[in-house]
Amino acid sequence: MALASVIGVGTTHYGALQSTFAELVIEAAKQALDDAGLGPDDIDAFYLGNYAGDSFIDQNHLAAYAASVIGLKGVPSSRLEGACASGSLALRQGILAIQSGMYKRVLVVGAEKMTSQPTARVTEILAQASNREWEANIGMTFPSVFGLIAQRHMYRYGTTREQIASVAVKNHAHALLNPHAHLHKNITIEDVCGCTSMVADPLNRYDCSLISDGASAMVLCAPDLAKEYQTNVVDIIGSGQASGPFELFMNEELTSFSASRQASQEAYEMANVQPMDINFAEVHDCFTMAEIIATEDLGFFKPGEGGIAALEGRTSLRGDIPINPSGGLKAKGHPIGSTGVGQGVEVVYQLRGQAGQRQVKESSIGLTQNLGGSGGTCTVHIYKRR
Amino acid sequence: MALASVIGVGTTHYGALQSTFAELVIEAAKQALDDAGLGPDDIDAFYLGNYAGDSFIDQNHLAAYAASVIGLKGVPSSRLEGACASGSLALRQGILAIQSGMYKRVLVVGAEKMTSQPTARVTEILAQASNREWEANIGMTFPSVFGLIAQRHMYRYGTTREQIASVAVKNHAHALLNPHAHLHKNITIEDVCGCTSMVADPLNRYDCSLISDGASAMVLCAPDLAKEYQTNVVDIIGSGQASGPFELFMNEELTSFSASRQASQEAYEMANVQPMDINFAEVHDCFTMAEIIATEDLGFFKPGEGGIAALEGRTSLRGDIPINPSGGLKAKGHPIGSTGVGQGVEVVYQLRGQAGQRQVKESSIGLTQNLGGSGGTCTVHIYKRR
Repeated sequence: MALASVIGVGTTHYGALQSTFAELVIEAAKQALDDAGLGPDDIDAFYLGNYAGDSFIDQNHLAAYAASVIGLKGVPSSRLEGACASGSLALRQGILAIQSGMYKRVLVVGAEKMTSQPTARVTEILAQASNREWEANIGMTFPSVFGLIAQRHMYRYGTTREQIASVAVKNHAHALLNPHAHLHKNITIEDVCGCTSMVADPLNRYDCSLISDGASAMVLCAPDLAKEYQTNVVDIIGSGQASGPFELFMNEELTSFSASRQASQEAYEMANVQPMDINFAEVHDCFTMAEIIATEDLGFFKPGEGGIAALEGRTSLRGDIPINPSGGLKAKGHPIGSTGVGQGVEVVYQLRGQAGQRQVKESSIGLTQNLGGSGGTCTVHIYKRR
Repeated sequence: MALASVIGVGTTHYGALQSTFAELVIEAAKQALDDAGLGPDDIDAFYLGNYAGDSFIDQNHLAAYAASVIGLKGVPSSRLEGACASGSLALRQGILAIQSGMYKRVLVVGAEKMTSQPTARVTEILAQASNREWEANIGMTFPSVFGLIAQRHMYRYGTTREQIASVAVKNHAHALLNPHAHLHKNITIEDVCGCTSMVADPLNRYDCSLISDGASAMVLCAPDLAKEYQTNVVDIIGSGQASGPFELFMNEELTSFSASRQASQEAYEMANVQPMDINFAEVHDCFTMAEIIATEDLGFFKPGEGGIAALEGRTSLRGDIPINPSGGLKAKGHPIGSTGVGQGVEVVYQLRGQAGQRQVKESSIGLTQNLGGSGGTCTVHIYKRR
């Protein structure tokens, strides 16, 4: 039984863009509304995923602002923030709103304009998603969080530098086939392992996701109405959300995120599927290491075997479980509030067979996993072609 | 038919407090959980209302952070932001979550720590809730927005300075009876009208709400379960949310907020009640003028008659429709993200007969109205004693 149906999707390109926040929101929303054959007046509720518009673009009260520029007159508008999972929190609230029976047609937009700030300031703003008092203020920004996690994974499981590098190589290769992607640059394992721009040992420049601008949008509706609007319906059949320890040091083990395990368990049970039923997934590769851990936490591979699978090509477009066919946060880009919605948009393109050169093979079920902070928030959604 | 039931409430004092954000959240949440006879492990979902923690206290990803300090292990946690209506947006999502059937027991907390920043910086942060490009950056901060609105109301309806002042006098008097209130200071109409600390003509220091720290919390549950936890159940029977024009100049008329009218209409219809059925209300008096307009938009008085009613004492504790028995934003205080939840907490205290010296006369139905920006967001909730 579907929770909600996706009847429209849209996305801007991700990248360092000239467009303002408002222009990004309008472009993504208009695409999604057009795709659903709806206008702003047909929308009953609006959810915006945004991490830190007040810091990035000096504008807050962002859902009402976005609703205004989209032309959603009177429509109840709410902004969700959950660090890098802000977009998928908005999506999940949209699903709950449909499930409540109070709304029939819901617009969800994820958006972030980041490149308006210099990189050092962006790093500071992002660090506000970790514990400022006990972590960020003593220098523990997110690259160092995931550097530590990588070190521990390598120590515990024997994960190699080459295995980690293979994630970057694959996602760059996928992004080359995605016109929406921020980066279009082919790289090799040698490029990654030989890179001298160290960020946080062992992670270098090629292991880190991008600072991007972008917006993505979805129109949801009650499952029984979907066929009225869209012939190519994709249903959301599972939705899980969980919190994990807020600080890295509160985790029992650094090589797995409890929120990711819990959220996926919830989504699998709701959808009545197993990890082996998932044909492909968009996961939260804010750093290469995070993708390896995600594929383990989601049950695609056993703990410690995610790196091996990546290097063997099992997660590439022609592998047995393609991961991040879009190019992922690593190469498609990571406009924070947009990411969680953008993952869903990619899954819908794939399930509809509209993914062009990056189309995965025949598939009916896709999954998204979106992580906030160092595992403080996680959501997992499961989509099925009707 | 109730949408959700309130089985626990709690609030910190509002004021310029020594407590950290975390301490405020813990205090309010613990009170509400204790009141419901529940522990953190009994909570299925958590919603936080917060406006700008990243700017005020250099910490973002605030729902997961708050969940962590409260001890809500694994509980899905989402932050809602909607300017000064952030708290009630969180409450409304909690209601939708119950209505969706996905969760049984939901904790809602509103919280803001504002006094960590100097007043000029607070004004800047608040101005991010208006259109920065076209309003705030040319000097149109919120006091000037409501100054213009007051001027227009006086011009159009003949509303007098004394009528506007009587709102401040009444709310100060109410706050004197509320141990949680920020201000405990008796004032007269002469004090207000004679005040030389002009803020935005005609509004002076006595017409403006306060910069406060504080947190308030509610535990909601599915209506059919409420009696298991609480003998003194208060049901939420109506919930409305709407957006209005984001910029002041986009309003057809400055003397009324369309979002307030639309949200109240929705809540009245859902609850199947009329304005005349409401026994008392907590409304959004960010400025004295805003309370007068709220009482008109909610249908308690005809347009232009709110000021007359206030001066006649009809909205005081012993009047026919007490407004802001708590002291309101004006004197109880206005910790932005907390306000919308705190209004609901006050209504529950009143309906339970636990409001001490500020208890309104025998009543069964109370209403809250929470406004964001210059009317860009509004929510209205209607509560009924079971």
